[in-house]
Amino acid sequence: MVAEKKDWLIRDIGFSEERITNNGNKFLCGNGYVGIRGSLEEFEKEHLPAINLAGIYDQVGDGWREPLNAPNGLYTRIKIDGDYYDLPAREAAEHEQSLDYRHGIVTRVTKWKTRRGNITVTSERFAHYDEFHLICMRYSVFADFHADVEILTGIDGDVWDIHGPHYNRILLEENGDLLYATGITHESKDQVTVVEGVSINHPCERKQKKEGRKILHRICLITEENKNINVDKMIAVYTSKDCEKPDMEGQKLVNVFLQKGYEVTRNSHIEAWENHWKTAEVYIDGDAKAMEALNYSLYHLQCIAPRHSESLSIAARGLSGQTYKGAVFWDTEMFMLDYFLYTQPEVAKTLLRYRIDTLDGAKKKAAGYGYQGAFYAWESQEGGYDACSDYNVTDVFTKRPMRTHFKDKQIHISAAIVYGIMRYVNVTGDTSLLEQGGFETILECANFYESLLVKKVKSNQYELHDVIGPDEYHERVNNNGYTNRMAKYTFEVAAKLLDDLVTFSEDVIAKIGKNYNVVQCKINFQEAAERVLIPQPDEKGVIEQFEGYHLLEDVSVEEVKGRLLHEKEYWGGAYGVASQTQVIKQADVVTWLTMFPDDFSEEVMLKNWKYYEPRTEHGSSLSACMYALLACRCGMPEKAYPFFMKSASADLLPGGKEWAGLVYIGGTHPAAAGGAYMTAIRGFGGIYVEDGKLKAKPQLPEQWKKLRFTVQYQDQLYEITETKDSTEINIL
Amino acid sequence: MVAEKKDWLIRDIGFSEERITNNGNKFLCGNGYVGIRGSLEEFEKEHLPAINLAGIYDQVGDGWREPLNAPNGLYTRIKIDGDYYDLPAREAAEHEQSLDYRHGIVTRVTKWKTRRGNITVTSERFAHYDEFHLICMRYSVFADFHADVEILTGIDGDVWDIHGPHYNRILLEENGDLLYATGITHESKDQVTVVEGVSINHPCERKQKKEGRKILHRICLITEENKNINVDKMIAVYTSKDCEKPDMEGQKLVNVFLQKGYEVTRNSHIEAWENHWKTAEVYIDGDAKAMEALNYSLYHLQCIAPRHSESLSIAARGLSGQTYKGAVFWDTEMFMLDYFLYTQPEVAKTLLRYRIDTLDGAKKKAAGYGYQGAFYAWESQEGGYDACSDYNVTDVFTKRPMRTHFKDKQIHISAAIVYGIMRYVNVTGDTSLLEQGGFETILECANFYESLLVKKVKSNQYELHDVIGPDEYHERVNNNGYTNRMAKYTFEVAAKLLDDLVTFSEDVIAKIGKNYNVVQCKINFQEAAERVLIPQPDEKGVIEQFEGYHLLEDVSVEEVKGRLLHEKEYWGGAYGVASQTQVIKQADVVTWLTMFPDDFSEEVMLKNWKYYEPRTEHGSSLSACMYALLACRCGMPEKAYPFFMKSASADLLPGGKEWAGLVYIGGTHPAAAGGAYMTAIRGFGGIYVEDGKLKAKPQLPEQWKKLRFTVQYQDQLYEITETKDSTEINIL
Repeated sequence: MVAEKKDWLIRDIGFSEERITNNGNKFLCGNGYVGIRGSLEEFEKEHLPAINLAGIYDQVGDGWREPLNAPNGLYTRIKIDGDYYDLPAREAAEHEQSLDYRHGIVTRVTKWKTRRGNITVTSERFAHYDEFHLICMRYSVFADFHADVEILTGIDGDVWDIHGPHYNRILLEENGDLLYATGITHESKDQVTVVEGVSINHPCERKQKKEGRKILHRICLITEENKNINVDKMIAVYTSKDCEKPDMEGQKLVNVFLQKGYEVTRNSHIEAWENHWKTAEVYIDGDAKAMEALNYSLYHLQCIAPRHSESLSIAARGLSGQTYKGAVFWDTEMFMLDYFLYTQPEVAKTLLRYRIDTLDGAKKKAAGYGYQGAFYAWESQEGGYDACSDYNVTDVFTKRPMRTHFKDKQIHISAAIVYGIMRYVNVTGDTSLLEQGGFETILECANFYESLLVKKVKSNQYELHDVIGPDEYHERVNNNGYTNRMAKYTFEVAAKLLDDLVTFSEDVIAKIGKNYNVVQCKINFQEAAERVLIPQPDEKGVIEQFEGYHLLEDVSVEEVKGRLLHEKEYWGGAYGVASQTQVIKQADVVTWLTMFPDDFSEEVMLKNWKYYEPRTEHGSSLSACMYALLACRCGMPEKAYPFFMKSASADLLPGGKEWAGLVYIGGTHPAAAGGAYMTAIRGFGGIYVEDGKLKAKPQLPEQWKKLRFTVQYQDQLYEITETKDSTEINIL
Repeated sequence: MVAEKKDWLIRDIGFSEERITNNGNKFLCGNGYVGIRGSLEEFEKEHLPAINLAGIYDQVGDGWREPLNAPNGLYTRIKIDGDYYDLPAREAAEHEQSLDYRHGIVTRVTKWKTRRGNITVTSERFAHYDEFHLICMRYSVFADFHADVEILTGIDGDVWDIHGPHYNRILLEENGDLLYATGITHESKDQVTVVEGVSINHPCERKQKKEGRKILHRICLITEENKNINVDKMIAVYTSKDCEKPDMEGQKLVNVFLQKGYEVTRNSHIEAWENHWKTAEVYIDGDAKAMEALNYSLYHLQCIAPRHSESLSIAARGLSGQTYKGAVFWDTEMFMLDYFLYTQPEVAKTLLRYRIDTLDGAKKKAAGYGYQGAFYAWESQEGGYDACSDYNVTDVFTKRPMRTHFKDKQIHISAAIVYGIMRYVNVTGDTSLLEQGGFETILECANFYESLLVKKVKSNQYELHDVIGPDEYHERVNNNGYTNRMAKYTFEVAAKLLDDLVTFSEDVIAKIGKNYNVVQCKINFQEAAERVLIPQPDEKGVIEQFEGYHLLEDVSVEEVKGRLLHEKEYWGGAYGVASQTQVIKQADVVTWLTMFPDDFSEEVMLKNWKYYEPRTEHGSSLSACMYALLACRCGMPEKAYPFFMKSASADLLPGGKEWAGLVYIGGTHPAAAGGAYMTAIRGFGGIYVEDGKLKAKPQLPEQWKKLRFTVQYQDQLYEITETKDSTEINIL
């Protein structure tokens, strides 16, 4: 794996089959509506190509419900003098894949030696920044001889699925020069239509043909020596959730952009990205590597930002495929939200509106367990349906599904929604989300926790039993500090909102007054907030992660790792190697302290950082940034730096966790990307609010000469420039 | 396996290595102080011989703490014409092992053909009924030629241990004709001394010799044709817990009985057993098989009755060896107690005094978990030490210990103690146990449950969460009906005792008044009894075993069994084949209904019997009798009968569960024996108390013409004779 460092360019030189999966993530492009894996044009499903769609799902039989991959309109193969030239089948003389992450343009260049001479195939593709349904590609052939070329390009409907096939049927049609592939899903008979048209800058013979689930142009031509033959493809993707007639809409779109031509379209795309970066770029002087990793992370977040929707969230693996069921986790509110809040609050609003709009799903889930209020899905799909299985891990020894408790016990999820909504309100100053359902959402989350509270008959403290905290290796614990603290926060927020009810619109006052016993709820929530057990630091200043944690075996991460009998075995659950030890998967107490830095003194925070860090496997990409943020909070930017870099490089470097038991969980890591942003802006950048004003107390790493970024706060754009000695905050 | 049916005689004809283990249990004899496995005299530790000792334990390193096996004073081998004649090494022409279970005499007869003729070795042994420290054996050789015989007999100190060796050192000594072997234990340097003396009815040459951990007489003689040569062995066993000088005591005892001679001693032993059976025998006319199985069960209970002690209980596998760590389970109070209550209440008192005397251990255990009161040991050893491991099962796939929750979550154990004490008080009318610590024991058990009670903040009901009920396949459940009902019972009993405090002696009144806030405790216990959640029958009349049980997969026992990947894999725990199904290990709701038949109508009891029976694996020998008892209660003696026979035959027939995961759990099943007794007397016999009087409402199985038994009730002996048409109750 070679990844040379250049401004805004990520490259992979040479070809290796082993890097196909990882490159699919690394060279991803997208526009929030689609995510296109960085696979090569000739790849068929065994090499995991995907044009992954946001927010549309399907389930086949008892398989996992997962998002759809569209028919692959980029599919293209080439024959030279009668022979196919494909990777990996035919070894290339030279090969390079690259991503211009400033503009979301992915390029491949492959050179083959043929019997008669050399040919170079170049492709360049992008998902248009503004035209969400449009994917463009220029596929070029360059030969140093008069090559007899046959290009097969069109739509491959035989898509890669993990638990598919999701298309019961694929309808392949042609209309003039345009090709159409329409997949009909199993579960809801949803329709996904891809329309493709090509334009070629060279005389050729064209036919159309169908091969199985593919519909293709067959383009035959003789190259001119040393001239680029360009096949420009305009590809439209629409689903029946977007419009009534996806094929008509697709046809219109393709025709418009065939008319405009590739280069004009490309320019408009580049311009849009350039415009975006004006306020999104984070500039770091003195550390090119960090700047690259961070802005590459922001690129990934931008590729999956649901700008086309008013109510949609982001999956844990973004739009990089079907892993994690394309489901929305707490990752969005807790790790990604800040980026959008500070750069595009309207996207943050879209993310949170998705939660408000799926309140019914959360209420159904709670009711299903006999609880009140809203228990948000651990793995949220359409309508808040919880895609999380009760058997989320496969035992590597018996191949049996293992009963896991992510879905039923990870109750901290609902508080993350409350936290997200309130962060939106506080950062933007916009209370419209509260007016439009956010108020009820928060009350229902508080109701949920209230219905879960237990007290020992002989005690007055309220407790939360039988939960899983952020550290998923320890299941079914009592009084997880993080969870209890988040419940307390939820009670406080709910009580405060009820206290402030009169400041809301008449509609809200009427609705809340009608549906809730406002006075009693307020009293209950206040009492719950006061009484809920919050674990306190022990004599060493350490907060016990949950009741009994300190009784577990205190042993190093390495030692625990050494006990593995199978490299893919699950560390958690009832009998995992970590389960009966103090080794944790990810930041847990540290996440609490990061989120509520005023709960304890800096000394306590530092002691907990030092206690828990060596006991943390960091088996989740959500872990590093929490350690980085708290390290900054404790005045240790140098300790924070490696965690920041780990978080920022999650998709840049190999080594991400690709397996949980026998389940493939590979893909991009937008939460880590978001965590890197948080660390840069809030950790190193040290921004904070005092008396309603944005301020900053930077803690720059040694080599950082200057840090500059732009954030939006309460409808105002600020440019913040920091050096070791100065902080400048300018309103733009 | 051949077990011919004769009055009071169990036989096994022929020899098979495969039956060695099972015969060790089947041909056990004992007197409560020792249990002697039915192994052959020549067996060394690989064939699991054992003279198992009651109530004395040792732990080596991290191994399980387990009871001691005494040095084997029965050890004997024979050489004919210079060759050893041992089983299994040398194939026998004929072989038979038998047990006269009326008198606790175990016999082996083995015939070998030698080059020069035939020899027959016969042995007969017993643990003397009244002389608890005395084991007697007659070892006879009969030859039809002048055989050159060398008998090696003495003490084998190289004992079979599961987690041993428990004797750090073995001291081998001789004093005149007596042999001494003294083992010194690891943990407490306890001393176990075996003294052995022989008497021979034939001229011989005698020497003594040591071989490793053995000390032996070498007896050389020439047989007379067709004359029995008898080697009579008197063996004494004493430990340093019995007396200061075990060797002196042993020497005295052996000398006394060598003096008396084998036959006189044997006669006194027989007489004692005959005397015992006068009131213990259960006579069944019309069903010899049932009568044999039942009285054989009572024989086993009698072999392990701690008549020599005033404070000792019975291990779950009796005195059949070290399995189950020789520990005392709820089996004693819930399953065995009735036999002793009705036949020898002084033994019942001894059993319960053990619990009262181990109250401190139970309080320590509770405190260790942060609870109040008394949490009795799940596997109780000396002082109430809980021998139960947190890792009680080994994973067959990974060979790793599995975290089990028998010790920390099976809280119903404390209520079983309360139940046992109160049954003693009610059946005997003797309140001295309450005076002598039973009162506090019950209060501390109530305190324990009170400290465990939780309530949902939004509910007024008291609940018990995160427990294991009798059905151990479902761990960590909430509101197990049996457990909650037993807790309610405990609260009621405790409150009633406090209510009746003035009726106790001044000492008790003073002590309780000093240590407890009597008024407040009474109010608390009453409130707890009223408020604790007791699951009620649903619309189908079925009581849910625990919260959520009915949501589990409803599938047959056979289907679940078919899912096993390994015959020894554990069905329970987090991921066992039964864990996420409604298949249960043993009677749970049915145990509740059996114990509290007035809680619900007969119709409800019947519906629950019918619901749970097909879902029960009966993987515990405690299960069958509860189904039998409830079937009787529901007027279905024919449905009860097979469960009764299963319970009564647990040690008679092969097929007992010998493995839990990779842990050997074989041995005798005294709880099943006790369960058979309960079914005979309370189920079929239908005895009950009304207005303080013993009455009976028999429900005899079809073929039973007559049932006759004797029970002691409130210091009065009753003979009860029942036929289909008549019930006669006579005071003896």
